[in-house]
Amino acid sequence: MEGNPPVPSRWGRVRAARGLDMADTRFLNAEVFNPFSGDWDRTDLAVKDGFLAGTGLYPARNEVDLKGRRVVPGLIDAHVHIESSLLSPSEFARLVARHGTTTVIADPHEIANVLGMVGIEYMLSQREKLPIDLVIMLPSCVPATASDIGGAVLESADLASFKGRPGVIGLGEVMNVSGVLQGDPDLYRKLDLFPLIDGHAPLLTGRDLSAYLAAGIQSDHECTGPAEAREKIGKGMFIYIREGSTEQNIRAIIPVVTTSTSPRFSFATDDRHVDLLVEEGHIDDCIRKAISYGLEEETALRMATLSPAERFGLHDRGALAPGKVADFCVLAPGKEFAVEKTFRRGHELQLNTAIPTPELRGNFTATPPQITDIVLTGSGSARVIGLVPHQIITESLIIEIVPDNLPDTRRDILKVVVCSRYHPGRIAAGLVHGFGLNSGAIAGSVSHDAHNIVAVGASDVDLCTAISLVIAAGGGLAAVNGDTTTLLQLACAGLMSTNPYEQVYRSFKALEHQVADMGGIDQAFMYLSFLSLTVIPRLRITDRGLFDVETVSHVPVFESGV
Amino acid sequence: MEGNPPVPSRWGRVRAARGLDMADTRFLNAEVFNPFSGDWDRTDLAVKDGFLAGTGLYPARNEVDLKGRRVVPGLIDAHVHIESSLLSPSEFARLVARHGTTTVIADPHEIANVLGMVGIEYMLSQREKLPIDLVIMLPSCVPATASDIGGAVLESADLASFKGRPGVIGLGEVMNVSGVLQGDPDLYRKLDLFPLIDGHAPLLTGRDLSAYLAAGIQSDHECTGPAEAREKIGKGMFIYIREGSTEQNIRAIIPVVTTSTSPRFSFATDDRHVDLLVEEGHIDDCIRKAISYGLEEETALRMATLSPAERFGLHDRGALAPGKVADFCVLAPGKEFAVEKTFRRGHELQLNTAIPTPELRGNFTATPPQITDIVLTGSGSARVIGLVPHQIITESLIIEIVPDNLPDTRRDILKVVVCSRYHPGRIAAGLVHGFGLNSGAIAGSVSHDAHNIVAVGASDVDLCTAISLVIAAGGGLAAVNGDTTTLLQLACAGLMSTNPYEQVYRSFKALEHQVADMGGIDQAFMYLSFLSLTVIPRLRITDRGLFDVETVSHVPVFESGV
Repeated sequence: MEGNPPVPSRWGRVRAARGLDMADTRFLNAEVFNPFSGDWDRTDLAVKDGFLAGTGLYPARNEVDLKGRRVVPGLIDAHVHIESSLLSPSEFARLVARHGTTTVIADPHEIANVLGMVGIEYMLSQREKLPIDLVIMLPSCVPATASDIGGAVLESADLASFKGRPGVIGLGEVMNVSGVLQGDPDLYRKLDLFPLIDGHAPLLTGRDLSAYLAAGIQSDHECTGPAEAREKIGKGMFIYIREGSTEQNIRAIIPVVTTSTSPRFSFATDDRHVDLLVEEGHIDDCIRKAISYGLEEETALRMATLSPAERFGLHDRGALAPGKVADFCVLAPGKEFAVEKTFRRGHELQLNTAIPTPELRGNFTATPPQITDIVLTGSGSARVIGLVPHQIITESLIIEIVPDNLPDTRRDILKVVVCSRYHPGRIAAGLVHGFGLNSGAIAGSVSHDAHNIVAVGASDVDLCTAISLVIAAGGGLAAVNGDTTTLLQLACAGLMSTNPYEQVYRSFKALEHQVADMGGIDQAFMYLSFLSLTVIPRLRITDRGLFDVETVSHVPVFESGV
Repeated sequence: MEGNPPVPSRWGRVRAARGLDMADTRFLNAEVFNPFSGDWDRTDLAVKDGFLAGTGLYPARNEVDLKGRRVVPGLIDAHVHIESSLLSPSEFARLVARHGTTTVIADPHEIANVLGMVGIEYMLSQREKLPIDLVIMLPSCVPATASDIGGAVLESADLASFKGRPGVIGLGEVMNVSGVLQGDPDLYRKLDLFPLIDGHAPLLTGRDLSAYLAAGIQSDHECTGPAEAREKIGKGMFIYIREGSTEQNIRAIIPVVTTSTSPRFSFATDDRHVDLLVEEGHIDDCIRKAISYGLEEETALRMATLSPAERFGLHDRGALAPGKVADFCVLAPGKEFAVEKTFRRGHELQLNTAIPTPELRGNFTATPPQITDIVLTGSGSARVIGLVPHQIITESLIIEIVPDNLPDTRRDILKVVVCSRYHPGRIAAGLVHGFGLNSGAIAGSVSHDAHNIVAVGASDVDLCTAISLVIAAGGGLAAVNGDTTTLLQLACAGLMSTNPYEQVYRSFKALEHQVADMGGIDQAFMYLSFLSLTVIPRLRITDRGLFDVETVSHVPVFESGV
C-alpha cells in the first residue's frame, strides 16, 4: 500500500463491510424488500457514510431496532414536473419525502418555458437544500412546438451548456412529436446531446411511433390504454405509468405489466397538485393503486425502485444492497403499503420544518383585460374543447352555439380565455365543456406549456376580474364569484408558491371549496392548466386562439370560419 | 424548418420509418424474437442506413424473403478475452460472427499484461476492421495483483488516458480482490474512473462479497455454484454465466435463472480456445447448452441479447425494434437453435475470406532453460496443484513425494515449470496433478495473467525442449515427445496467431492429438494457461514459485519449507 489513502467514501464503506471498522448505524430486525430476487429478506442493515455496507450482523456505533418492520428502498418518481405541485422544490421535496420518495427524475419544463436558462439554473441551485435527490432531465421542447410562444426559447446550444453539470443526466420528454416526425433540425441536434432521452408520445402508433423510436427516443409516460402500452413495450420503450392529478393511467395500464416486463415499467406522477400529494401521497399512492388493481405488491415495488434506477443508469440506488445509498422507507405495521418513516443516507428525515425558498419573479408583462377583449362573435357549429375526466387528452366537440346564450351553463359550455403573460394585449377566447361552473370564473398563471394566464368562467366580468387578480399578484390561481374572491399567490415564477406546503395546501383547498361552491368539478385548476397544452390531442387554446393538435394549426371557434 | 438538414443517420431512418423514403431493405416473412415481450412476432423488418426503421409493411429498394425463418437479435458476449481464442481480433470476429455474435464486450487484459498501453492500442486499432462490434472494458488489474510480475504495469493515470475513446465504455473485471478488500489506493482511483465496473469474485461470499460490492463493483462471471449465484444476484450483481474451454458453469447456474431475474443474467465465454469456437460455437453454444439444462428458450435468448445490452447501457442494440442496429441472426429451420446467417447493419456477413492481421512482437527476452534449472529438491509432504475438471479453480493437494520418483506418472504427478518471458533466467518448478501425460511435455506462452512460459511434463528433457521451442518462436504452444514436436506459433504478442482461424484450428488440433497420444487430458493447453493465475483459488505457480491464493503469498513446494 503506497501513496495517499483511498477516498474515504468508497474505502470507508468497504472497511465497514468487512467489519474492520464500526458501521455508523445498524438497523436490526428488518424485513427488507429485495427487488433483485423479489423476496423479503429478514436481515439487519449496516450503514456507513450514507451507504449500505452490508446486510446481516455488524458492529455499529448506533443501533436502531426496526422490530420486524417491512423496509423498502427509497421510492423513485421516474418523471415529474415539480412546478405542477404549486410548491417550491424544497417544499415539494419535504412533502414527497414523507411519502417515502427519495429520488425524483424531474424535468423543469415549466419554469424553463417561463424563464429559460434562468429557470433551469434556479432548479439546479435548489438541489443542495432538498431532503431528496433531484435528478434533472433537461427540457427538450421550450417552447413545446413551433406553434407555442412562451417566455423563452431553448436551443440545442443552450441545452449543451448543461452537459456535465452535476445532477443533469439526459434529455427530457421530447413532446414535440411533429418536430421529430418532420425533422426539425435543432430538435435533432438536441437528440444528439445525451444518450438518455425521454419521450412523450400520447396515442402515437404504427409507423409514426416507429419513426419516433427510430429517432432514438426511449420512453413514454403518456399511455392511456392497454393496447397502446403493449405496442410501446413491444417496440422497446420504457413505460412510466403516470398517475397525476387529472391524468390517471394506472387502472388502465396495470393489466399489461408482467413479471417479465416489470423492469421496463416505472411510476411517474408528471403533474400532481399539492392537494393530491397531501391527501393521497406520491409514489406510495401509485403503489397502493397498482396493488388495488391487481398487481402483485413485489412487482409494484420493483417498478417504484429498481426499474427506474436502472432505466436512468443510477447504479447507486434502487435496492438495499452493499454499495447502494442507504435511502429507504420503514412501512407502518399491517398489510397495506404505508410509509411511516423515510431514511436518507441512513438518517431518518426530520420533515416538520419548512425549508425557505427565495422568490423568483416571473416574466410578467400582461395587462388586465376588458370585457370587450373577450367577446366571441359568430354562430352555428362551434368547436368546443371537451374535458375527458381523469385524462389529459381533450375532445374536439362540435356543438351548435347561439352566442347570445353564452355562457350556456345549462349545457356546461363556458368561455375559456387565454391572456399572454409576455405580450401585453394578446388575448384569445373560446369555448369549453366539462368544468361545471354555474357562476363565477377561475384563472391561473399555470398553463402548460407557455404558462400564459388561462381562465374559464360563467361570467365575463368575473373572468376579467380573475385574470386581473392573477396579474396583480405576479402569478397565482384565483377564483372569483362576484365579490367573493380567493387567491393563491405563486411568487416563484408565477408557478410555485414560496410558502410552506401546509399553507399552500390550505390555500389551495380554499380555492377548491370556492370552485365547488360555484358548481365546478374536482381538480378544476389542473384541467384548467392543460387547456393550452398544444402537444396533447385534441383541441386546445393558446393566446392566439383555438388550436387543433392533429393538424398542428390554429382554427376558428365557429366552423363557418368566423 | 430552418438551418441545415438533420444528420442523415437519425433523420434518414425516421423518414424511412414514416414511409416517406424507401427503406434500403425489407426482410419479409420473419418470425422475430422480441426480448421486450418474450414473444415471437410474425412480421417484416425494414432497414435503413443499418438501423431498424420499423416492423411491418414498408416500401424498400431490396426485398429478402426469409420464408418464415426465425430471426433473433445479434448475440452479445458480455465478457471475453479475445486473446484466449489464440486468434487475432479479426479472425476471432470472423469466426464468432458465423455463430451469430455481433457484439462482444472484451477486456484486453492478456495483451495488456504483455504490452501495456501498446497492447490496448493494438486492440482498439483493430476495431474498424472487424465484422462485429468490439466494445472495450479496460483491464483494471495489470498486473493482476501486486504479487504478479508481467510485462507491464497499468496505473489509474494510464487507464484515465483512454476515457472518451470510441469503444471504451468502462473498467474491466476487477480481479484484484485482495486489493479491493485491503484498500490499494491506485486501484480505488481506477474505480473512480468509470461508472461501469465489471467484477471477478470467485467464491467470494458474506462480508467480503459485501465489501467488494460496497466498493462499487457491479458484476461477476465466476459463479460456479447455485448458492454462490443466488447470493450474488440477491446482493445486486449482474451475473454473466461463463462457459469457456475449461470453466463451464452453465449447467450449475442455469437453475438459478428465472423470468424475473433474467434481466440480470447474461452469457460470457471469457476464455474459449479456437477449437471449441469452431466445433461448438460461441454464444449460440451457450444458448443451446442453457436450453438443454432446462431453461426456456426465450429466457436464454433474452440473456444473449437484451440483458447484456442494457447492463452495458448499449441503448442501440439487444432487440430488433425501431432505432436499434439491424444486427440479427437468421436461424436454420427446425426447433434447435442454430444460426444459419448473420446480418450486421442489415447486410449479410460474408465470412469466407480471412482478414489479415499485422504481427505484433511481444515482450520476449527469455533464455532457454537447462535441466539443472528445473530440479526439485526436498521430500515429504508436498503441495501439489490439483486440476478440477471443467473449472478454473484448482485444489491445493498435499501428497507425500519422493523426489527420485518424479515425475510420478502412475499417480499423475508431473512437473510444472514457469519461465519468465521478461526476466532472463527467472524460473520456478512445482508439481501438478491432473494432466495425465505419461510421456513428453507441453509448453505455452499463454499463461494468465503475466503470460510467462508455462510448461508441464513427464520428462525434464522434453520440458526444456518445449520451453525452448516456444522461446525460439517468439511465443506459441508446443508439444514435445522426444523427437516428435508440434508447434503453434503465436506471432501476435505471443498470445494470438496471425493466421486464418481455419489454419489455427488445424494446428491446434494437431497439438491436441499429440497431447492425447502422450496420454494428456482434453483442453490441456487451457488448463496449462491457468496454472499461473494468481487471482483464482487455490494453488498456483509463478516464475517465483508456488503461490497460495488465499494467503496471497508464495509458498514452498515441500511443507518442510525446502
